[in-house]
Amino acid sequence: MNTYEYPESRRLFERACHVIPGGIYGHFNAVPLSRAEAFPLYAARAEGARFWDVDGNEFIDYLCAYGPMILGYGHPAVDEAFRRQMQQADTVSLASPKMIELAEMLVDRVAIADWAFFAKNGADVTSYAVTIARAATGRNKIIAIKGGYHGTHPWMQPPGHHGIRLDDHAHYIRIPWNDYDALERVVAEQGDDIAGFIASPYHHPVFEDNALPAEGYWQQVQALLRKRGIVFIIDDVRSGFRLHRGGSNERYGFEPDLICFCKALANGYPISALVGTEALRTVTANVFHTGSYWYSAGPMAAAMATLEELDRLDAPRLFEEIGTKLNDGLLRIAQSHGYTLKITGEPSMAYYRITEDPSTILHQRWNAECTRRGAYVTPHHNWFVSTAHTDADLERTWAIADEAFAVVKNEGI
Amino acid sequence: MNTYEYPESRRLFERACHVIPGGIYGHFNAVPLSRAEAFPLYAARAEGARFWDVDGNEFIDYLCAYGPMILGYGHPAVDEAFRRQMQQADTVSLASPKMIELAEMLVDRVAIADWAFFAKNGADVTSYAVTIARAATGRNKIIAIKGGYHGTHPWMQPPGHHGIRLDDHAHYIRIPWNDYDALERVVAEQGDDIAGFIASPYHHPVFEDNALPAEGYWQQVQALLRKRGIVFIIDDVRSGFRLHRGGSNERYGFEPDLICFCKALANGYPISALVGTEALRTVTANVFHTGSYWYSAGPMAAAMATLEELDRLDAPRLFEEIGTKLNDGLLRIAQSHGYTLKITGEPSMAYYRITEDPSTILHQRWNAECTRRGAYVTPHHNWFVSTAHTDADLERTWAIADEAFAVVKNEGI
Repeated sequence: MNTYEYPESRRLFERACHVIPGGIYGHFNAVPLSRAEAFPLYAARAEGARFWDVDGNEFIDYLCAYGPMILGYGHPAVDEAFRRQMQQADTVSLASPKMIELAEMLVDRVAIADWAFFAKNGADVTSYAVTIARAATGRNKIIAIKGGYHGTHPWMQPPGHHGIRLDDHAHYIRIPWNDYDALERVVAEQGDDIAGFIASPYHHPVFEDNALPAEGYWQQVQALLRKRGIVFIIDDVRSGFRLHRGGSNERYGFEPDLICFCKALANGYPISALVGTEALRTVTANVFHTGSYWYSAGPMAAAMATLEELDRLDAPRLFEEIGTKLNDGLLRIAQSHGYTLKITGEPSMAYYRITEDPSTILHQRWNAECTRRGAYVTPHHNWFVSTAHTDADLERTWAIADEAFAVVKNEGI
Repeated sequence: MNTYEYPESRRLFERACHVIPGGIYGHFNAVPLSRAEAFPLYAARAEGARFWDVDGNEFIDYLCAYGPMILGYGHPAVDEAFRRQMQQADTVSLASPKMIELAEMLVDRVAIADWAFFAKNGADVTSYAVTIARAATGRNKIIAIKGGYHGTHPWMQPPGHHGIRLDDHAHYIRIPWNDYDALERVVAEQGDDIAGFIASPYHHPVFEDNALPAEGYWQQVQALLRKRGIVFIIDDVRSGFRLHRGGSNERYGFEPDLICFCKALANGYPISALVGTEALRTVTANVFHTGSYWYSAGPMAAAMATLEELDRLDAPRLFEEIGTKLNDGLLRIAQSHGYTLKITGEPSMAYYRITEDPSTILHQRWNAECTRRGAYVTPHHNWFVSTAHTDADLERTWAIADEAFAVVKNEGI
């Protein structure tokens, strides 16, 4: 199998280092990986489940832009809805009727939602949810999950990160995932000052096996939070509309007060949303939050087309089918080489780890060898599949994974 | 002159109130104004310096989407650059070479810039700048200007706003605008714990006359901050590229360490940028900050086309010319009706106030009567002009302003 080289990516990266701190920032920065040279750095073109890097190499994409791409890049119906709206109006001095139509669509679709609010980033709405919880309760503290991610505002970054002060965390209490007893203890001790609880619908940290909710966990959590008047916030930014058409909480059978959506909402067009219950409507109207492009109508039209297309495809069922098939194949291939591939989280956005090497170097090497053969993956973040991933894509991916295992086996890691 | 009615706007607003808290949120919410019924609420279409509301009424737009629209809505060259890029790639699993090209363009153009960083909201970069200042200095406190606006993150919202805790302001010291002595006092008392100073290049609060920097103010500020190793942050989100092609600090002759750009950078396409000096490059690379759509290439291509078009038009000179002409006419017309229109701030994004009525009701009424005749304005935020505002637009606006003054005069306010 041909392996890729990246001279143009490297040349561009050197140019980037002159004008961008670190060259590539944030979650797109693959540079710290061992064998970083096996990964491309810049994309020139994208279509369906594939992108082409600046060296002309073709990749089946298992990151899906880290979530936003859910229907395939350049989806005709979504792009057409966007273009049609852009010919009329996007960011203007007034809101667009599209905002109302999209809000109605979310209220119809999401069981707990009596209203919707739109912004640009996931963190715009996770931070807003936390502020609403404080305004609604008059309390200060927020309970979150250890290793949970809700964006890069200071309160959400791990203590010790550059520029983050201990104070930024003063009112955040981190408890382990799936640990109802820990929640109960914290609530018993500090319940009168706890404004809200925020978590992903299931636990999908980076650099760590993902974990589904234990049987009955969410129902216990919900009952306790309701009893103590603590606002129950679900961060569905990464998983929203992948696991259930009405939000991931419906898959697990529970009812939060606020749900944050973002990534897959408009198949890559920039928009995020907060939806919530009737009880929080008035307080939300009073908590001020705004941004320069939050009324842009183009991404709202794209979101409506995306949700319609997801329904047409019965997408959550399709994602589970594609993810399960991909994973079954990968497990079998790993085994045939004598490796154990541990796959955790939901099948359509699973987290992968080769258990034989706790240093993770082996896993990084296998990811690198997959990538330089045309299956774009990264080692310490969950992958994603889209509705555009075909059986032929999976078969090609299995062949790549097979050869990649053979290569790392030969290296004797 | 025909006056507008808004039955469709009102009908939509009632629908919106069912599914959006307060119907319209944030800075787009004109509902609290007296005579709110004189203002349209939803835009259907926009082109050049005009938009059309959902009732088919046509407006010359003096809000310019609250800043983003700088070259006119639907600018052909900008839209074409955006569309061309979108056909290739927008939000993908890798960054785009467009990011490097745009960073190089900003580094070439902005005197103090040795690097650039891109995000979506203005507040993404004002908050990032503050975190960088803390990381760079190991200190906690930030000095800001009373009434200054840097987005709606909790630290930037006035104490007492719903959901904002006193703690959110614990490390922020607010001093009056143009008050160098106040800065000197704060620095003398707490200088060892002051990480940064953040301000707009000139003072453009809402509900208050705007104020240019006093002679020598910025030069004194800069000298003191340099001497004490305090990071000097300019929030050029609203004024950036309107007052000077290289950033508003160049208009006033000073050199901050970090500059935040947003609104007009891409003529409405969603992008913000932070640029900074060599001394802050390494620390910036270490301060983690990211977002789902921050690598989208479409808005980056649009930004490059916008900056090129602004240069082609020598836009800052043109803005000053258009703004000055508009204001001279309005002053003269106000005077002819016996009113004093106080116009403050830079001519191309000035703040207006009729001085005869401290209650501001008269000013709100005049704005309302202008708007319902086709010049869209709001009473307590600075207006904006774009390169698309023509002499014919100004003449029409003066005729509207004239009739609006006559109406409020007749009402005997």
